[in-house]
Amino acid sequence: MDLVTLDDVNGAAERIAHAVMRTPLISCPWADPGRPLTLKPEILQVIGSFKIRGAVNALARVDASVLARGVVAYSSGNHAQAVAWAAKELGVPARIVMPEETPQVKVDATRRHGAEVVLCDTGRRVQVADEIVATTGGTLVPPFDHPDVIAGQGTIGVEIVEDLPDVDVVLVPVSGGGLASGIAVAVKTMRPGTRVYGVEPALAADARDSLHAGHRVDWPIEDRNRTIADALRSQPSELTFAHLSRLLDGIVAVSEDEILDAIRTLALDAHLVAEPGGAVAVAAYLHHADELAPGHVVAVVSGGNIDPEIFARAMGSGKR
Amino acid sequence: MDLVTLDDVNGAAERIAHAVMRTPLISCPWADPGRPLTLKPEILQVIGSFKIRGAVNALARVDASVLARGVVAYSSGNHAQAVAWAAKELGVPARIVMPEETPQVKVDATRRHGAEVVLCDTGRRVQVADEIVATTGGTLVPPFDHPDVIAGQGTIGVEIVEDLPDVDVVLVPVSGGGLASGIAVAVKTMRPGTRVYGVEPALAADARDSLHAGHRVDWPIEDRNRTIADALRSQPSELTFAHLSRLLDGIVAVSEDEILDAIRTLALDAHLVAEPGGAVAVAAYLHHADELAPGHVVAVVSGGNIDPEIFARAMGSGKR
Repeated sequence: MDLVTLDDVNGAAERIAHAVMRTPLISCPWADPGRPLTLKPEILQVIGSFKIRGAVNALARVDASVLARGVVAYSSGNHAQAVAWAAKELGVPARIVMPEETPQVKVDATRRHGAEVVLCDTGRRVQVADEIVATTGGTLVPPFDHPDVIAGQGTIGVEIVEDLPDVDVVLVPVSGGGLASGIAVAVKTMRPGTRVYGVEPALAADARDSLHAGHRVDWPIEDRNRTIADALRSQPSELTFAHLSRLLDGIVAVSEDEILDAIRTLALDAHLVAEPGGAVAVAAYLHHADELAPGHVVAVVSGGNIDPEIFARAMGSGKR
Repeated sequence: MDLVTLDDVNGAAERIAHAVMRTPLISCPWADPGRPLTLKPEILQVIGSFKIRGAVNALARVDASVLARGVVAYSSGNHAQAVAWAAKELGVPARIVMPEETPQVKVDATRRHGAEVVLCDTGRRVQVADEIVATTGGTLVPPFDHPDVIAGQGTIGVEIVEDLPDVDVVLVPVSGGGLASGIAVAVKTMRPGTRVYGVEPALAADARDSLHAGHRVDWPIEDRNRTIADALRSQPSELTFAHLSRLLDGIVAVSEDEILDAIRTLALDAHLVAEPGGAVAVAAYLHHADELAPGHVVAVVSGGNIDPEIFARAMGSGKR
């Protein structure tokens, strides 16, 4: 299976530069000086997550006459807002399929970007999206299982190495694996000595098990749904697993308490609001140093769209 | 009285570029589309506030042989960390005078940057700082009453106009007035049609009263201490008042509830943790539209070092 290349990622970087923030690196004077920590805050993107990079790159690769028939996605999370926003920028219609139980705040955010939200029964969203594609001739933008999406997310890796050439360790959340695949392509090609680790909730550690087994291991969705990190409940595809298994230096699994602690630390020390899935890389830095190579760490803070009740819970925990 | 000029601010921009983040502008898709809102998040600076700009510029203007005798500041807040950090970058000793009742977390943060913290009785901090200057020959860096400090803070205004040339309205917190003076110099010189408003807590609205009276009006410190915005309890000096009275288009006073609402909105919609003084500009945008000129607004989110209990209170308020 062909992997995405650094050329693909560099092409994506040119394609998305007009629409996507080059997020700054943030130094953390409060971290362990023996292993400095720097944050890559993708929460600053206009939709609050990195997903905008892959969506903008994927749509930029579609012919204008095809795009005019609209774009389609199924997602209850950050990918929905990313595709809606990217379509609005291009002036083409977006139809986003969401399960009926999607929180109203996420439905509203997607509609705010001008998308038509199509609610459906749980478990039917892929089928409903396919039906819309069949009737409209629109273009489906998958959340991670596509080379253009992976290349778009990989632009984060290029920015990290360009802005901090001495980086020793990069920590990246893993769900479907698009983000980690893209970043690993960029970082391991530009600077092979840098270690790239994926980070997962221990309650949804299917990618860790898959890497250990050497083939994809399926975790029932009921198990994966236990984690508060709602953005990290997907599983790698064949395409992303091929990237992760060849490129990652390891995978770290973090507990729910460690995630809450990382959310609180990010808020009070770095002034950033991360959602649970966006905080796992910092959780790995704070609580799993023994599983990581030494040196200067960059943690990708991938998203900030947190449920207010979970945020209140995180802020109320701990000893401060 | 001579005001700081755009040349002074541009000189500061060159002097601080190596040490200070050029913070990005963040668009707010959740704001009123009829009057777009963009944030200038100074909370992303390494010390969590804009104060680093003035401190680095002020120290860069001091002769190396003088600097070697160390720098001195009196502050219980963000200025303390700014001077400590700037001194560490230059490899010179910093002595920061703080009142005994300063929260331990702020003492610790200042020490983390390598400064010597000198605790003193309430009300004696200026005297103690003067004594240290007399015995050490060190350089005192005032928190706002100095042209180099004002010019350093003004670099924010240059960045705003360069990155968003069509800005109609700039909202800036006012305490001692160094930040608002510097930004107003830059913005009103580069783009005279843009309106620049100061924002104060209604419980510490001495600058508003002073601008209305045409001369500095003194509010007792007991009154100013009522606001939760601990960073906004100072009063303008003659130098900063001269800037504010000639350059500002107005001053908006916001309530304590409006400040808490802005903190919550910034956290949940923009994923940024602002301290009360850092949230007042957004409070003015959200609750005082009728006092502002129409058009595209930039709100300066000036600092993020919030007391965890006040943050919890803000997150617990409101209807979300």
